Amino acid sequence: MINKICIIGVGLIGGSFAAGLKQSNQAKIIVGFGRNENSLIKAQSLGVIDKYSLDIATALQGVDMVLIATPVDSFGTILKLIKPYINDSVIISDVGSTKGSVVSIAKQIFGRVPKRFIPAHPIAGKEKSGVEASDGALFNNKRVILTPENDTDTQALEAVSELWKILGAQVETMTHQQHDDLLAMTSHLPHMLAFGLMSYLIENNPDARDYAAGGFKDFSRIASSDSIMWRDICLNNSADIVKHIKGYQESLDKLSNLIENNQSEALENLFAEAKSARDEWIKD
Amino acid sequence: MINKICIIGVGLIGGSFAAGLKQSNQAKIIVGFGRNENSLIKAQSLGVIDKYSLDIATALQGVDMVLIATPVDSFGTILKLIKPYINDSVIISDVGSTKGSVVSIAKQIFGRVPKRFIPAHPIAGKEKSGVEASDGALFNNKRVILTPENDTDTQALEAVSELWKILGAQVETMTHQQHDDLLAMTSHLPHMLAFGLMSYLIENNPDARDYAAGGFKDFSRIASSDSIMWRDICLNNSADIVKHIKGYQESLDKLSNLIENNQSEALENLFAEAKSARDEWIKD
Repeated sequence: MINKICIIGVGLIGGSFAAGLKQSNQAKIIVGFGRNENSLIKAQSLGVIDKYSLDIATALQGVDMVLIATPVDSFGTILKLIKPYINDSVIISDVGSTKGSVVSIAKQIFGRVPKRFIPAHPIAGKEKSGVEASDGALFNNKRVILTPENDTDTQALEAVSELWKILGAQVETMTHQQHDDLLAMTSHLPHMLAFGLMSYLIENNPDARDYAAGGFKDFSRIASSDSIMWRDICLNNSADIVKHIKGYQESLDKLSNLIENNQSEALENLFAEAKSARDEWIKD
Repeated sequence: MINKICIIGVGLIGGSFAAGLKQSNQAKIIVGFGRNENSLIKAQSLGVIDKYSLDIATALQGVDMVLIATPVDSFGTILKLIKPYINDSVIISDVGSTKGSVVSIAKQIFGRVPKRFIPAHPIAGKEKSGVEASDGALFNNKRVILTPENDTDTQALEAVSELWKILGAQVETMTHQQHDDLLAMTSHLPHMLAFGLMSYLIENNPDARDYAAGGFKDFSRIASSDSIMWRDICLNNSADIVKHIKGYQESLDKLSNLIENNQSEALENLFAEAKSARDEWIKD
């Protein structure tokens, strides 16, 4: 049980984390901090946070833990902002989509990665954003990946892990390198392919839109994601993303060659394997 | 109004066309033909067809129109089968996903493309297949593309067009070359990208499946399509599909270069354009 926690950035993820803590009585006081007072007022009126402050010193007074739930882009600014007001006993955690970059920024700002900094990535989301969409059950049965360093404080790691488990999440740990490589493959690559498809259509035949059927809809839905968030993910995980785009292009070359050479049996096998893997992996 | 129509292949599409004709009283007698008697019995008991025959001569006796709704792969076999039993006054149409190939097969089997052959492609489907899933409203507000030749009988073209319009479809005509190029871009390419992604994951990191989130689900859903159907589409529209895969790869290369070179502004613009085009095109 936490005495006081400060959530920096009370949007969908920060708000859902706060709501989950409230619903499970895991924190006595949840204070929100952010730039947008209207959004904080809304969070308070929804009961997601107990109170808020626009002054960082006030917001952080006496906290046991700070959760940074702002876009990855702002992570450095936030760390600089909170640094003067927290001591070594305070747990810092985040929810960013890339982990190598936050570790490196933390190292830069604190001189070394703080021992009680627990980088975290809940693999959960919604089409909607903002605190209005927050939901204490958002992380139920979702994966949360923690990426501790070799010298991370095990008690702090355990505490953060417990909180996510109480919210229903399946928690696991790996290195930030493993995380960034894995997410580049399972999340960043598919998004780049969808953005790339839209870009190809726009440049080559915008009128084709009128003939797009179900398959295209499914495919391109993820191209409707937030452009600033994806710009930041690309800038923060460029090497892994580029590596997987290049790897993917080799697979696509192989497929293209099979089509060009009318390799009927190989095509059928490739499609059947893809279908059975997909059906086995993801049961809708 | 048609006196007698024969539907060859009473599955989802053939069955839905028949059901739509029945519901709108556009055909006096609808006879089904196919290899699978159980499926034809089911179609009859569902009221989708009036009767069926396993003998092609009986099925075609006195018909005004034949609709071929079997996989594109079987098109040649079906045309050979029906050829002895139809005269020049009978309208032949189909519902295949590729049109250049059916025209070329028709030319091959009849010596020239029959003047009353109207190649058609309803851009509609369901996740389910089989006559059980058939639905007289399936084509409502869906596009149907007809690809007549220069010397196609205009009366036959008009008749087929009218039938689809009565089922609620938006009918338009284009050349089979235009159709195959367009569909390669809007349907075949996205499917190849999804199959390629599954193939890449299977070969490189099958365990990554456990970390796949919503974006990946959306993207890969279309990789769960029928492998034989997609093999046939690839074989029947290989040049256009390969052309669009290569074009797409150039777009993906550009995107990859932007990421590699940290082109923040260009990335944000590309993502924002993709998002706005997608949101404008397809309102879910």
